[in-house]
Amino acid sequence: MFNIDNFLHKDMLPGSKKWDGFPAFNFVGGHNDEELVPIKDLENAARKVILENGKILGKYNYTGPLGYLPLRKFVTKKLKQGAKMDCSDEEVLIVSGSLQALDLVNETLLKEGDTVIIEESSYGGVFTRLKQMKVNIKGIPVQEDGMDLSILEETLITLKNQGIFPRYIYTIPTIQNPTGTVMPENKRVDLIKLAKRFNVPIFEDDCYADLIWGEERPPSIRALDDSGRVIYCGTFSKSIAPGLRVGYLVADWAVLSRVLPYKTDAGSGGLEQMVLAEYCEQHFFEHLKTLNKQLEKKSLIMCEALDKYFGNTIEYEKPIGGIYIWISFPEYVDTSLLYSHAMESGVAINPGVEWSIEKESNKKMRLCFANPIQSEIENGIKALAVICQKQFGVPVNIANLN
Amino acid sequence: MFNIDNFLHKDMLPGSKKWDGFPAFNFVGGHNDEELVPIKDLENAARKVILENGKILGKYNYTGPLGYLPLRKFVTKKLKQGAKMDCSDEEVLIVSGSLQALDLVNETLLKEGDTVIIEESSYGGVFTRLKQMKVNIKGIPVQEDGMDLSILEETLITLKNQGIFPRYIYTIPTIQNPTGTVMPENKRVDLIKLAKRFNVPIFEDDCYADLIWGEERPPSIRALDDSGRVIYCGTFSKSIAPGLRVGYLVADWAVLSRVLPYKTDAGSGGLEQMVLAEYCEQHFFEHLKTLNKQLEKKSLIMCEALDKYFGNTIEYEKPIGGIYIWISFPEYVDTSLLYSHAMESGVAINPGVEWSIEKESNKKMRLCFANPIQSEIENGIKALAVICQKQFGVPVNIANLN
Repeated sequence: MFNIDNFLHKDMLPGSKKWDGFPAFNFVGGHNDEELVPIKDLENAARKVILENGKILGKYNYTGPLGYLPLRKFVTKKLKQGAKMDCSDEEVLIVSGSLQALDLVNETLLKEGDTVIIEESSYGGVFTRLKQMKVNIKGIPVQEDGMDLSILEETLITLKNQGIFPRYIYTIPTIQNPTGTVMPENKRVDLIKLAKRFNVPIFEDDCYADLIWGEERPPSIRALDDSGRVIYCGTFSKSIAPGLRVGYLVADWAVLSRVLPYKTDAGSGGLEQMVLAEYCEQHFFEHLKTLNKQLEKKSLIMCEALDKYFGNTIEYEKPIGGIYIWISFPEYVDTSLLYSHAMESGVAINPGVEWSIEKESNKKMRLCFANPIQSEIENGIKALAVICQKQFGVPVNIANLN
Repeated sequence: MFNIDNFLHKDMLPGSKKWDGFPAFNFVGGHNDEELVPIKDLENAARKVILENGKILGKYNYTGPLGYLPLRKFVTKKLKQGAKMDCSDEEVLIVSGSLQALDLVNETLLKEGDTVIIEESSYGGVFTRLKQMKVNIKGIPVQEDGMDLSILEETLITLKNQGIFPRYIYTIPTIQNPTGTVMPENKRVDLIKLAKRFNVPIFEDDCYADLIWGEERPPSIRALDDSGRVIYCGTFSKSIAPGLRVGYLVADWAVLSRVLPYKTDAGSGGLEQMVLAEYCEQHFFEHLKTLNKQLEKKSLIMCEALDKYFGNTIEYEKPIGGIYIWISFPEYVDTSLLYSHAMESGVAINPGVEWSIEKESNKKMRLCFANPIQSEIENGIKALAVICQKQFGVPVNIANLN
């Protein structure tokens, strides 16, 4: 019989297991609150655009390879309002989720052996991609106000002395994933100064920036830069729905024109772009208010459950936005082991090693509070505490159990 | 100032030019008839699924990483009916257009220096991808009934003698792109025998198979194979709308499980999948009839225009399906030059060299008749004949002009 293994090169990714549904208590990934998918308004938008403009689906990329023009125009408007960024619709490339933005930038700039600088706790998908490309990663610690710029400076100096020119500094400055930190404006300015001094591009991932709950967000790094060195990406996955695969990459045309040839997918989904453009023009900013109120509420539910069931066994910062809590355990708790045991009981967590290359990542854990409903959060955290106690002896006491 | 060029490796793709709209006479690409995008029924489908099931967009990949289950179920039904193929919904991976299927299979199987076998006239996107990956291409001539199997056999023998194991035989057996040929069932069986004898996987691209106008299509190669060596892909881009980026990859789970880890896009567009599933369940087969009738009509309009304005200067086979005509010029016509001159007059053609590695590809041309309306076909072909005459002296006489 035919055996695919005979045709696979040695260092290929291991095979997938068959999917057997979501766990009962799902605290992983970036799933959002299903009740907040604005189905009524999306339906209205879909009806309108399909009837009025659906014919354009008969062509690939009807409004050009950068994507559906009305959506690009909305993105420029939204970025002006939120990120304080000026850009033209010719500096916006619509992509199939911000993951495609990452792939495109990496394909344009990186080859095996290159070096990049990135927050040492960062988006897991970025680590995976960079490792697969055999790119060297220099990690920078994340402080309460984002990337540690003095260590960044040291790193840039060391690399320069070694004759190594990093291809970019990748950062998630606004509601950092997983730490939830926000880099203030003055620090963003300093980051740009460093990038200029050492002549490094900045790759700013602003995927969670719409989910800042209380205060106004700082201007994006790209908005503060005047040199064209900042490549910026964002997404509608977090603000509207993860199932819609629509994000955007923003850069000067000089840069975008070099990225675009690598987008060989004959365009991102036309219907999703059309529906989003129509929906967002009417409802985006109102929807954000509703969404953020609910996310804040859910974060509080999770914090309460964590405090109740884990007590002072764990440490974390209360989120001010986004959908995650980044949690530290004492050193004798290994979250990769905790992950395995918890999965057996239907509790899914993201162990720190997937989201961080810092030395102590194996005692960290990321939880997403956006998707589960209140009772799932409460029961899931309780179940997790019981598993943790059984495995590692902490928390010593669990409320309502002892 | 920042200059992106300083950060680009030497062998990167050249930058894109700014898009300045579609040409007046657009005979390139795979655009379809805009009037035949079934907007009323798509709108109904969108209304229904968004209201009834839109919440699931709140999760990534609600029905698992293989894609939206109702759509996978429809694909299995459709493939049973058209391609005579049995497959389970766990052997179907929904992808963002069949281009993603190509990328995934290539990423899974190929590395620089590998060898693949492919029809020497084939889909341009495949040549581009393979060249970018620095993969060796062995081209097999296409006869009136598809790939020349005796040359395939010779090639397989030669490669074997050289100790080279081709990674796959890529073929478009049903309405081949660009030649429009259909490989009959007995030849498909022979192709499988060869693939077995030399133990090579087959990659069957069936993207145009729904657009066969008259007779019934032969069973797919995958349907005729019992060894699990055929990886199959298809698309809804050609049957419903190119702007919808939804295709499918079908393979035994043993194979699919190795491909799936390379799909790191967090899922294909959920809304497009949902709308398509609902639409197709109701209307797919009826729609195909309408579409194919219209495509056949347009092909006749183009054939008439070609005969009228080019006379016996050119040679081509009348299409029996699909959206293209593959045309041969006398040897003193260089279609790459013709392409440049025609573009200046707003007539877009695909020169042969983009679609073929055969020796005489520079006197070939591919025209798509699906998108332009009747007057555009007639006026565009006439304009092209005038340009060709001016440049190459043929056709000597142009109807209604001399």
